[in-house]
Amino acid sequence: MVTRLLKELADHVSAVVVGDGDITIGSAATLEQAGPGDISFLANKRYEKYLAGTKASAVVVDKDCQVETRAALLRVDDPYYAFGRIMVLLHGYRKHRKTGISEKAFIAESAKIGADCDISEFVTVCEDVKIGDRCVLYPGVYIGPGTQIGDDCVLHASAAVYEDCRIGSRVIIHANTTIGGDGFGFARQGHKHFKLPHIGKAVIEDEVEIGANCTIERGTIDDTVIGQGTKIGDLVAVGHGTKVGQHCLIVAQAGLAGSVNIGHHCVIGGQVGVVGHIKIGDMVQIGAQSGVINDVPSRQIVLGAPAVDASRARRAYSMFQYLPEMRKEIRKLQKQFARLENSEQTVVDKGHGQ
Amino acid sequence: MVTRLLKELADHVSAVVVGDGDITIGSAATLEQAGPGDISFLANKRYEKYLAGTKASAVVVDKDCQVETRAALLRVDDPYYAFGRIMVLLHGYRKHRKTGISEKAFIAESAKIGADCDISEFVTVCEDVKIGDRCVLYPGVYIGPGTQIGDDCVLHASAAVYEDCRIGSRVIIHANTTIGGDGFGFARQGHKHFKLPHIGKAVIEDEVEIGANCTIERGTIDDTVIGQGTKIGDLVAVGHGTKVGQHCLIVAQAGLAGSVNIGHHCVIGGQVGVVGHIKIGDMVQIGAQSGVINDVPSRQIVLGAPAVDASRARRAYSMFQYLPEMRKEIRKLQKQFARLENSEQTVVDKGHGQ
Amino acid sequence: MVTRLLKELADHVSAVVVGDGDITIGSAATLEQAGPGDISFLANKRYEKYLAGTKASAVVVDKDCQVETRAALLRVDDPYYAFGRIMVLLHGYRKHRKTGISEKAFIAESAKIGADCDISEFVTVCEDVKIGDRCVLYPGVYIGPGTQIGDDCVLHASAAVYEDCRIGSRVIIHANTTIGGDGFGFARQGHKHFKLPHIGKAVIEDEVEIGANCTIERGTIDDTVIGQGTKIGDLVAVGHGTKVGQHCLIVAQAGLAGSVNIGHHCVIGGQVGVVGHIKIGDMVQIGAQSGVINDVPSRQIVLGAPAVDASRARRAYSMFQYLPEMRKEIRKLQKQFARLENSEQTVVDKGHGQ
Repeated sequence: MVTRLLKELADHVSAVVVGDGDITIGSAATLEQAGPGDISFLANKRYEKYLAGTKASAVVVDKDCQVETRAALLRVDDPYYAFGRIMVLLHGYRKHRKTGISEKAFIAESAKIGADCDISEFVTVCEDVKIGDRCVLYPGVYIGPGTQIGDDCVLHASAAVYEDCRIGSRVIIHANTTIGGDGFGFARQGHKHFKLPHIGKAVIEDEVEIGANCTIERGTIDDTVIGQGTKIGDLVAVGHGTKVGQHCLIVAQAGLAGSVNIGHHCVIGGQVGVVGHIKIGDMVQIGAQSGVINDVPSRQIVLGAPAVDASRARRAYSMFQYLPEMRKEIRKLQKQFARLENSEQTVVDKGHGQ
Repeated sequence: MVTRLLKELADHVSAVVVGDGDITIGSAATLEQAGPGDISFLANKRYEKYLAGTKASAVVVDKDCQVETRAALLRVDDPYYAFGRIMVLLHGYRKHRKTGISEKAFIAESAKIGADCDISEFVTVCEDVKIGDRCVLYPGVYIGPGTQIGDDCVLHASAAVYEDCRIGSRVIIHANTTIGGDGFGFARQGHKHFKLPHIGKAVIEDEVEIGANCTIERGTIDDTVIGQGTKIGDLVAVGHGTKVGQHCLIVAQAGLAGSVNIGHHCVIGGQVGVVGHIKIGDMVQIGAQSGVINDVPSRQIVLGAPAVDASRARRAYSMFQYLPEMRKEIRKLQKQFARLENSEQTVVDKGHGQ
Repeated sequence: MVTRLLKELADHVSAVVVGDGDITIGSAATLEQAGPGDISFLANKRYEKYLAGTKASAVVVDKDCQVETRAALLRVDDPYYAFGRIMVLLHGYRKHRKTGISEKAFIAESAKIGADCDISEFVTVCEDVKIGDRCVLYPGVYIGPGTQIGDDCVLHASAAVYEDCRIGSRVIIHANTTIGGDGFGFARQGHKHFKLPHIGKAVIEDEVEIGANCTIERGTIDDTVIGQGTKIGDLVAVGHGTKVGQHCLIVAQAGLAGSVNIGHHCVIGGQVGVVGHIKIGDMVQIGAQSGVINDVPSRQIVLGAPAVDASRARRAYSMFQYLPEMRKEIRKLQKQFARLENSEQTVVDKGHGQ
């Protein structure tokens, strides 16, 4: 285990130390579970209650944090990011198995593999594949004919990439994810469904990370593209020909239909559905479970099914449970009105009749 | 690359040519991306704006299309289907690797494999399996004991079929899909959950296509059945004992619980959920993200959660965001009414008292 | 095929026999599909109509069942559970392939494998893995370095368990499921997303069953835990650091975000979404497709998005389709009111003016 002085960690993330910078830190932990020698962080108000009683030796906090605690503090602008960088310093990222090119893998003769790759047992690298340097392919990975992969990529167990796809550099693809499968491209043929060939590729740009058990379809006609730096959660479906811009976040179980166009820096919540053939601008945020059926202009925050402006949606949803009361109130007004109208009639009649 | 004369393509799909039928076409492309030598199509009004400026040499359009364009036109009844058939002519479907039966596959001695199959590396074909002619099994595919597969099937990488299942002919199963896993069949046993054995099979009929990372459970007691010609998108869950009729479309991330009965030619939208033990008729259409909790008669189009008649649902959903306004209006009416009733009282009092 | 006398089955489940206990039963079947020699059951009112006409020789029914039928009856307190136990007696659970440790598997030298394990072809067991006795690993399973697995576990085809995870005893993991992949743990770093290392494990306790194509992430900082006896359906996503208590049921396609805390004996319906960092008590029930965004106290039954008390939600949802009518009624009231106010004004004017 690597240990560091707190002041070293502070230097690393440009933090102001409150307390003894010479204590030794060996590990990262949550506020609740941390013990002596651990560093923790506070980035979400929900966990503030744990700060006072934490046994962590140090805690990374916001510059304005006022909570009293016995732990030393590292004050920073962005506690989560700073804590993440400290985690890298203390723990590093996953150390991949050093397998070299396993004799139990299958590498087609025409495939070209760069330097220092680790290709595990039971990996299949098909004909005419090109793989860059320092890539790691876990057991059971399948790379279809003609697919090209850049440098420093990691494909986890049983990830499958169909033929002729393009994967950039520093891409991470998690286990059991499928890249480049056919889209739902069928045309009616009388009472049957006619399958279209899928001549588009799936293109995964640099620094993309894709979670486990996702499906990124290839395009029917033009390519499906996941833009540089975009991060995708687990069990996400991206349809044929859809283009996702750079540095988006797509949370678990979201689904994008085919031919969707999404700009850069969008955040798409968990279990969101986006219908086909629409355009979502840049920096759009879509709340969890929303159903997006129309174009969304840049910088909009939308929510609901169908998705509308989020604050508007939030008001509507918060009111939803009162629908029965609203209906009763309408009924009551109708009755009151009818009664009033009757008595009114009487008054009017009297007024007129007398 | 195969090239064809435009008039050959026109003959193939019974199109009327507008323009020069002797030009050469080599590839299919979208209106936006097409260049000289490409053929494109227009089947969705959203893309009409790209027709005038397209650089495609030819475009497949509807018989009534009126847009001006320099491209030659192929006028047909159904542009998407005609274009699909032209894609097949120009590009063909996926060419599978010709591996024969790989020495790196495991084939149980008691398994029977038909003629001209391609069984890739790291495929497992268990005891008593029967596979027909010309099947293609991609790397990592698992076929459990006693399972039977017809002719001309394609199972993509790491698709897993549990024991004793039945798969017809001309079936396509995409990567990382699981067929015949156990259903969610548990009975309460005091404070625990008691697992039921699953003695039903999963039965996949002829010409079915199942997307990537789907789960088609086996039946607890009777079989799960996917009817002939039905096409299923990615990440779809079909529960134990559910029967899906012929030629249905089930879009990505939809989920059918157990013991559901679905007729033929139904269209089930993306992310739809269907509760267990209900009956959905023939030619039913279920809008995306709907939750279906009651039987649906044939030919109904339903939408929403809970799903109701689609046009009714659409009106309700379009109104949803106005709930806060509705509530305000009710509040206002209540106040106005109260005020009116007071003044009314006054009038009535005056009327009576004077 | 094993056959049993009906009275033996009755003894096994403490049933009262109505009819001939000496008939022979060989198989379990549904009421509709059963024939002579079959036993069936009735546990759901929807199927009561099939009881009179069933060709089953015997039917397991509730103690109070009054339907007339020619079949012999086994009267019990809980027909589904009793029927399940009879199924086990007649059919048993899945018989796993007896492969021993296949020569086509890869077992790292430092891995420790218990007695009587069956490890199939193309399984990868990495360095420092410990596996208990009588475990069954199907083809293509991946067990990452340092992971520990108890006794009597079954991992189906291509299930992937990342490094350093903990899996208890009698755990079943279905095909293509991913355990211990990285969570969606990213921090903003200017315009990019910075990946946090994931130092937490995934911990799967004893008697857990996890369906096919699920994703149970590892923790970013502290462990993700699935409590003892919990059963999870297909395509379920469990986020990083989330703790699920004992004996819960999580139905297909549900998704739990990160750092969620769920008590014991909860039932989470299909396609439910639960946001991160919230606490759900014990014995909570969450209706299908709900979106849970706030803490839920123990024993609550909630439904809807956002989820509220279920009976309240059900009333609101049943009213949802009448929103357009409600709006019309409000409009009408407004008009009536305006008209009335006018005429009222007249009356008042008259009252005052005369």
